[in-house]
Amino acid sequence: MNETGFIAALRALPLHPGARGLADDAAVVSLGTETIILTHDVLVEGRHFLTTQDMADVAWKLVATNLSDLAAKGAEPIGVLLGHMLGGDDARFVDGLGEVLEHYGVPLLGGDTVAGEAPRSFGLTAVGRATHTPVPSRAGAQIGDALFVTGTLGAAMLGLEALRAGDGGDPLPYTRPLARLLEGESLAPLAHAMMDVSDGLLLDAFRMAEASGVSMAIDSAAVPVADATRAMACLTWGDDYELLFTLPAGTCPPVAATQIGTVEPRGFAPLFLDGEAIANSQGLGYVHG
Amino acid sequence: MNETGFIAALRALPLHPGARGLADDAAVVSLGTETIILTHDVLVEGRHFLTTQDMADVAWKLVATNLSDLAAKGAEPIGVLLGHMLGGDDARFVDGLGEVLEHYGVPLLGGDTVAGEAPRSFGLTAVGRATHTPVPSRAGAQIGDALFVTGTLGAAMLGLEALRAGDGGDPLPYTRPLARLLEGESLAPLAHAMMDVSDGLLLDAFRMAEASGVSMAIDSAAVPVADATRAMACLTWGDDYELLFTLPAGTCPPVAATQIGTVEPRGFAPLFLDGEAIANSQGLGYVHG
Repeated sequence: MNETGFIAALRALPLHPGARGLADDAAVVSLGTETIILTHDVLVEGRHFLTTQDMADVAWKLVATNLSDLAAKGAEPIGVLLGHMLGGDDARFVDGLGEVLEHYGVPLLGGDTVAGEAPRSFGLTAVGRATHTPVPSRAGAQIGDALFVTGTLGAAMLGLEALRAGDGGDPLPYTRPLARLLEGESLAPLAHAMMDVSDGLLLDAFRMAEASGVSMAIDSAAVPVADATRAMACLTWGDDYELLFTLPAGTCPPVAATQIGTVEPRGFAPLFLDGEAIANSQGLGYVHG
Repeated sequence: MNETGFIAALRALPLHPGARGLADDAAVVSLGTETIILTHDVLVEGRHFLTTQDMADVAWKLVATNLSDLAAKGAEPIGVLLGHMLGGDDARFVDGLGEVLEHYGVPLLGGDTVAGEAPRSFGLTAVGRATHTPVPSRAGAQIGDALFVTGTLGAAMLGLEALRAGDGGDPLPYTRPLARLLEGESLAPLAHAMMDVSDGLLLDAFRMAEASGVSMAIDSAAVPVADATRAMACLTWGDDYELLFTLPAGTCPPVAATQIGTVEPRGFAPLFLDGEAIANSQGLGYVHG
């Protein structure tokens, strides 16, 4: 079964009302006066990280990508649970795990440790509490909103190229991505829609448009890119973990961000790039597998 | 690094105060007026299940073993998150997942889906809310308590033998273990200490004694076993997911359970089986890996 078929089959099961997006979106669960946010990501050797990579960086990325899902919900992290497959480089993994947990002030809650063999896989569950309700989702974009993104797109792409070339370029944007937790918390009370850009700006904007029943009109020249000579690659490459969000027209973002487009009534395509309709998400970005 | 070394290294990291046991015990997190319980287990093909097994049973076991960790905390399940590695038999996996979620009335909250290859691994996080605080732990056994266990030990062992032999014996106790959720909820206000018996009765009783700073005196003849001709095998085999708990002397358990021993002052060994001291946990049960 491919991922699409599998997720379609899962949707027929008893689902929690907070499990809106299944694999796409963090889960939102009301509990007494609190709302908790839960997300789980798996990294597989050779697929989500290079076999030659420093395991400290793999541990960092595993935590940061999950915290990024919490950031998109405006959540404050409570802790993480680790599903770890033992190997020869576990000491480096623990080093990186300690570094990322210290960096974000997030504690380890528990998990499971198993023996395994290559290709190894690592799972992480992050739990947070919502700082604002209703919790922002990708489905809330409204016609007339302005579309913003934090940071610079394509930085992770250049980071991976530097890592592969080993030519002294800076691999950090790929190996040690940052989760926009503070930005997410500031934006949660204001944003109509919000998500993190894990799979490429265009693909994720396409998904936000689909979920919201609107069209996104993006001005490619407005998007901050890490390499202007390869702007399209920067717009379709994943792993940047920036926040994509919409605000009512005239509202200034309380964090550093760039307006890259507007939310329009649903046209015959969910996405318009420099006026050109993009009706199909094929080839727009990285599809997980 | 082996599991013991890895867990020792993890203990040096920023830990949540509720992460008492790391890999051993579910995490306990206070949140407003609620207390949430979190647990994460990983099953690896060829290690935790047979490559030839029906994937519907693997999905069942993945959920049931995590719910068993919630049961030991007297928790009511809120939902589960799945880390799934795609393969050829995903439709059966979804069938079994649906069956176990329906059986326990537990919804799917979300998760992640990745491509992978054999040996595949599957992770599951279960989240619940405590029905009683303080939440029972393995560390609360008190001198003079009576030691109880639910159900019959060794049933999973016979189930695996039936599965391997294919001779018409009943594999269900191995393939579709049950989580003692209702029992755990009834016991939580009464039990001084509680845990589930995932790795074998003697090993888990040894661990409870160590965590509580006491000795457990077990009368082997009192333990209900599935095969009286192999009583010792039944006491050291894992996968039964019964509840092991202590109650103050004279308190009757509100659920079906058998008294199998007493809690004594810490002697020179944590465990005494029919009066014989067992000072070392080596060989007592199944050590995860």
